[in-house]
Amino acid sequence: MASITDTELDEIYAFAIQLGKDAGKMLMDAATSRFGAGGNSGQEFSEKDNAVDIVTQTDEGKTREKSSPSRAASRVSFQLAPGVSHCRSRSSLLDVEAFIHRSISSRYPDHKFVGEESYSKGTSREYLIDDTAPTWCVDPLDGTVNYAHLFPTFCVSIAFLVGGRPVIGVIQAPFMNQLFTACKGRGAWLNETTPLPLIREPIPPMPAAAPKGCVFCCEWGKDRRDIPDGNMHRKVESFMNMAAEVGGRNGKGGMVHGMRSLGSATLGLAYTAMGGVDIWWEGGCWEWDVAAGFAILLEAGGLVTTANAPKDPSNTEIPDAHLGGRLYLAIRPAGPSSSETGRQGQERVVREVWRRVRELDYTRPGV
Amino acid sequence: MASITDTELDEIYAFAIQLGKDAGKMLMDAATSRFGAGGNSGQEFSEKDNAVDIVTQTDEGKTREKSSPSRAASRVSFQLAPGVSHCRSRSSLLDVEAFIHRSISSRYPDHKFVGEESYSKGTSREYLIDDTAPTWCVDPLDGTVNYAHLFPTFCVSIAFLVGGRPVIGVIQAPFMNQLFTACKGRGAWLNETTPLPLIREPIPPMPAAAPKGCVFCCEWGKDRRDIPDGNMHRKVESFMNMAAEVGGRNGKGGMVHGMRSLGSATLGLAYTAMGGVDIWWEGGCWEWDVAAGFAILLEAGGLVTTANAPKDPSNTEIPDAHLGGRLYLAIRPAGPSSSETGRQGQERVVREVWRRVRELDYTRPGV
Repeated sequence: MASITDTELDEIYAFAIQLGKDAGKMLMDAATSRFGAGGNSGQEFSEKDNAVDIVTQTDEGKTREKSSPSRAASRVSFQLAPGVSHCRSRSSLLDVEAFIHRSISSRYPDHKFVGEESYSKGTSREYLIDDTAPTWCVDPLDGTVNYAHLFPTFCVSIAFLVGGRPVIGVIQAPFMNQLFTACKGRGAWLNETTPLPLIREPIPPMPAAAPKGCVFCCEWGKDRRDIPDGNMHRKVESFMNMAAEVGGRNGKGGMVHGMRSLGSATLGLAYTAMGGVDIWWEGGCWEWDVAAGFAILLEAGGLVTTANAPKDPSNTEIPDAHLGGRLYLAIRPAGPSSSETGRQGQERVVREVWRRVRELDYTRPGV
Repeated sequence: MASITDTELDEIYAFAIQLGKDAGKMLMDAATSRFGAGGNSGQEFSEKDNAVDIVTQTDEGKTREKSSPSRAASRVSFQLAPGVSHCRSRSSLLDVEAFIHRSISSRYPDHKFVGEESYSKGTSREYLIDDTAPTWCVDPLDGTVNYAHLFPTFCVSIAFLVGGRPVIGVIQAPFMNQLFTACKGRGAWLNETTPLPLIREPIPPMPAAAPKGCVFCCEWGKDRRDIPDGNMHRKVESFMNMAAEVGGRNGKGGMVHGMRSLGSATLGLAYTAMGGVDIWWEGGCWEWDVAAGFAILLEAGGLVTTANAPKDPSNTEIPDAHLGGRLYLAIRPAGPSSSETGRQGQERVVREVWRRVRELDYTRPGV
């Protein structure tokens, strides 16, 4: 835990939870301020890479200075792709972004802050998290497309890292009244009172014929290039393998119980911690999209490894996922069966997934 | 409105809302009774068609007699596919099923009741709704796979039909505290106080380049046979067309803003009524899976037509969906733009979807 004492961690955890609640409320207030507000707000909107991506102005080639959160925040606006229901509450969203950064900076001036806005568009996205200082990794709005359309699965996502590892995670999804929290050694929780995973006395083992019997989260993401063997094609081929009947797809058919797409990485990981998702597989997102989800899932007893199978998938030791690796495979918490430990069951499922998914092509400078 | 007066309809609406709330609470109580309850409840579980389908005993070749709901309910149990987290709350779920049927039968003994349990497994699933009597079309638990895994998107779905058309819809998703209600002429509502669609002053037009800019609901369903040109392959080809970059897929690329899968048809329709989903396209479900969603979406100003394109998709009049047709394409409520009415925008999007989706192969006796 580096230089953080248990007492300090408790205090930081309480602070992070309150921050998530407050920011979630502001986000929902900004959302509800749009209820009844229609399509012509007079704002200007711009597209980034494509129609999937909704950007803030700080993405547009500007780097936020950590030392000046309020000035930086004044440059942030919420922009929607053309044709999307517009958002009148620019000031409210500005407030959420600035509020989180300012709250952390004033309470913990020595802590580092990393988020999407820490990176410049078009330049190298080197991994900025290291083990030198306690670090906050924050996405004030995960599931931006959802928020733009008022699809319920958007959230505030706040992680606190020590030694480069997420030890606190807070995810507040205000449209659904779902608050997920975890701190290393303190358990993982839904709405502060219900421990995760939900079913836990005992925690069910992984299904014996997994992926059959599993809920599988399949996110389409924003790389929609129609390139033969490109990421979209590889993803869809993988989805098909997981979905198809047992015996189908040249023996790769996984016959999963359900295919679900939420459009929020961190929330998908929280649902995996809860046990509602058994298998979450995704490539292309960034550390702020997953850090809080990592903390919650790991504390609940889940496993996170890489989306891409290693060279010897049947026998190689299961590596821990790299937070900045952009390739993730998460398995829900699992209890023992009569023939294997919970961890053995999770690892069995990892190998069964690896056998069915294509290698995704997402890279990261320095990782 | 046949023989139902406005006053009677108001009364039935209020009754339906309370019924949805009560049943939703019972469903959530049954769910929370599983929190902490693990994998070995001593119950026996069976599979139906495949690992996706979770069945009640009434599906197993038995037809429930309408006149004896409590006796029939005593045969209903909640069964999960092997390996799925089991459910200890058999009696609670029995109660939900019986409660809804009994409540309706005792309050409105002359009304007809249609639900999944009205049909026998393996025999002809003729469409049982007609215009002779006011009819309730109910799914006490929609999103059964979600419920089994405690994935949040499960709900109670209650529709009331007059003259064969849904005029009242009540959907209660208790895990997310979402209650959707509508009655013909009384508006559509989220949690009774927020009118649908959420953004409504004015209601945004359909995106000019739709499906680009749209959230698209793509449900994988349970037909997972790996048959060349079978439903799964046709669905996935359609999903790919909707997702791919503009210009891709031989000109069919739709570049939708987001691809979402909820695992509940009626809730997907409610989200479309809300505006969170722009396009909902699905085949294979049944009238109890969509009737309440139909009522809510139509009252909110949405459009529901058939999933399969007619012979002349560019010019043919857009037909209303047949409630029992098992093929559905829903478009969110839309306001006018400078160049078209809301309805014209919806119809434009219908034709754009038809151009990109494959014909699905689901049939229905007598429809």
